[in-house]
Amino acid sequence: MRKNYLLTPGPTPLPPEVCQALGKPIIHHRTPQFQAILKEATEGLKYIFQTQGDVFILTSSGTGAMEAAVVNLLSAQDTAITVQGGKFGERWTELCAAYGIHTEVINVEWGKAVDPGEIEKRLKANPNIKAVFTTLCETSTGVVSDIEAIGEVVNKYKAVLVVDAISGLGAIDLKTDAWCVDVCVSGSQKGFMLPPGLAFISVSKKAWEAIAVSKSPRYYFDLKAAKKAIQSVDTPFTPAISLIIALVEVLKMMKQDSLENIFNRHRVMASATRAAMKALGLELFAPAAASDVVTAVKAPAGIDGEKIVKTMRDVYGVTIAGGQAELKGKVFRFAHMGFIEEFDILAGIVCLERVLKKLGYSFELGTGVRAAEEVFLNNTPRL
Amino acid sequence: MRKNYLLTPGPTPLPPEVCQALGKPIIHHRTPQFQAILKEATEGLKYIFQTQGDVFILTSSGTGAMEAAVVNLLSAQDTAITVQGGKFGERWTELCAAYGIHTEVINVEWGKAVDPGEIEKRLKANPNIKAVFTTLCETSTGVVSDIEAIGEVVNKYKAVLVVDAISGLGAIDLKTDAWCVDVCVSGSQKGFMLPPGLAFISVSKKAWEAIAVSKSPRYYFDLKAAKKAIQSVDTPFTPAISLIIALVEVLKMMKQDSLENIFNRHRVMASATRAAMKALGLELFAPAAASDVVTAVKAPAGIDGEKIVKTMRDVYGVTIAGGQAELKGKVFRFAHMGFIEEFDILAGIVCLERVLKKLGYSFELGTGVRAAEEVFLNNTPRL
Repeated sequence: MRKNYLLTPGPTPLPPEVCQALGKPIIHHRTPQFQAILKEATEGLKYIFQTQGDVFILTSSGTGAMEAAVVNLLSAQDTAITVQGGKFGERWTELCAAYGIHTEVINVEWGKAVDPGEIEKRLKANPNIKAVFTTLCETSTGVVSDIEAIGEVVNKYKAVLVVDAISGLGAIDLKTDAWCVDVCVSGSQKGFMLPPGLAFISVSKKAWEAIAVSKSPRYYFDLKAAKKAIQSVDTPFTPAISLIIALVEVLKMMKQDSLENIFNRHRVMASATRAAMKALGLELFAPAAASDVVTAVKAPAGIDGEKIVKTMRDVYGVTIAGGQAELKGKVFRFAHMGFIEEFDILAGIVCLERVLKKLGYSFELGTGVRAAEEVFLNNTPRL
Repeated sequence: MRKNYLLTPGPTPLPPEVCQALGKPIIHHRTPQFQAILKEATEGLKYIFQTQGDVFILTSSGTGAMEAAVVNLLSAQDTAITVQGGKFGERWTELCAAYGIHTEVINVEWGKAVDPGEIEKRLKANPNIKAVFTTLCETSTGVVSDIEAIGEVVNKYKAVLVVDAISGLGAIDLKTDAWCVDVCVSGSQKGFMLPPGLAFISVSKKAWEAIAVSKSPRYYFDLKAAKKAIQSVDTPFTPAISLIIALVEVLKMMKQDSLENIFNRHRVMASATRAAMKALGLELFAPAAASDVVTAVKAPAGIDGEKIVKTMRDVYGVTIAGGQAELKGKVFRFAHMGFIEEFDILAGIVCLERVLKKLGYSFELGTGVRAAEEVFLNNTPRL
């Protein structure tokens, strides 16, 4: 017997309601029954995106929606700013390069957040910049960007603001309309507590103006086709029906919970996790801009981060994430997002303590879990 | 109480094993546990594709794999043949147009199959043609193409042969290697008995040579990235994990059943359906090239095909498909593919008889179902 705990920044664990919805018999997508579901899902997404604009559901990974943003907004030879402070920021640059779009890359030290002033400087210097590509939470480093401040800057220019909110939307605050985010992309397997396979994308009026003149080749990810289809409550291509049925379930749960409660829960889980790591004498990778969805922690000197991750997973059934790209072996990443609550976090911390002890790291057993417990005790409304 | 019967050409009903697999807790995709699943799925697909070449799993609708074929094989200004005898043949032409690829369109009368000689004539006349895009079963008309004969023709030229086998693969025969199909694309929601959300694509050596020189922009659907990732048993982007877990289940079932039994079952179901329609005095839309996965039937004079479909679905819970595009209202389409067997077919025919009677069509009750019963009686090995 072994219970498994999933504390990875995507996929995140599935609520039982989702498992049940996924296991239902399939229905046809061109029926009034599915149209009601598609309509409910689209409306529910607008609540989570905090937008009155358009939101579309794509059948793809989150990266598909990132590609949709690039190819619908821009044309070859256009110039865009990409903010690059980790693996997922780099993906914007790669996507632009694939479609012949020039990029002004703002390189941000991994572990730090971008300075909105730097974006403004670039926009001022080059009036031809048509889009600014950013990341809400850089999953590879655990850093959260100040999208509100960036939105205030970009809104003064003709460029559109695009945010990769794959990690974070539905878990931490992002006010699409109020913060002037023109295109926000997300995926099903993180804050939305679903399996991967769906992507979501919002489009503002300013973004539609860019789409109207964009010449990049596209077909599967064409947002004009998506817009046309949704007018008759349809999708241009056969959608991932079962995932959309489950999406309606989570959207109901999330609305009932309320964004306020959701954000607060993530904030407390993140504080507890960070308090535990500090109490264990471990160093956070991004102390100044730590996100509330995933915490990157430096592996202690002399201990391989990959070994920590593998031992927790293979021996104890607790799956956290290792470091990616240049951080491989140097950090481990502990997620506190989606269908995860305090007791999961505590299990994860206890497991980490156990493995660190076994690997020879010196600390007093129980200090991590106790620090987390204190945060939960003082910050949750439960009796 | 109402039981629902799904007799549509995608999605097709889910086996209980699939529903169960879909409802399992999620696992992380970068784990040895998922790698074993991905490997088993890829190997299992090669059995169904009847290929020793590469097969990749994409997280998208079938159309995503069609786009992958176009953008990986060709560059803007290249010329390709598209065979257009229905809505899905037209999709190849639209995809090529979106990426600046010239097309020599072979227009085939809806309801007829393409003449392989016509393809040869075009290939001979224009040595610059780099690809031939065809459809195994044109779902909109129910027509099946003679891919074996087309493969024999195209193989003599430098052009690659691409087959949209979204409707049909895993239900009717398509020998990817033996028939010289360079790229075969399929989807999860038809012969594979899964929900929509996965696409599959095979790549021959000749296709890899075309891919090596193709300059079309691409990122999410880049097959070189998929090839590189699979070498370390990975996918370039987060895959639709739960659907791949369910895919392994159906591939096991299909292998145990054997391609021979699967193809035979579809052949018998198609014969029974056609026999029933003829016995009811109804006219098949594609009598000369009827596929074994879906049968398009002309609505009787004076009766709206849409009315038949809606009444069967909304009053009796039996979902068949209506006509698409120019065939809307003129035909209805009765699918016999995937997790459907003789008693489902008989239920569908009885329901059709009931509705035709109510709508005033004149025939002797029971003649359709009896004709189908006879075909099943004489063609199935069961006692």
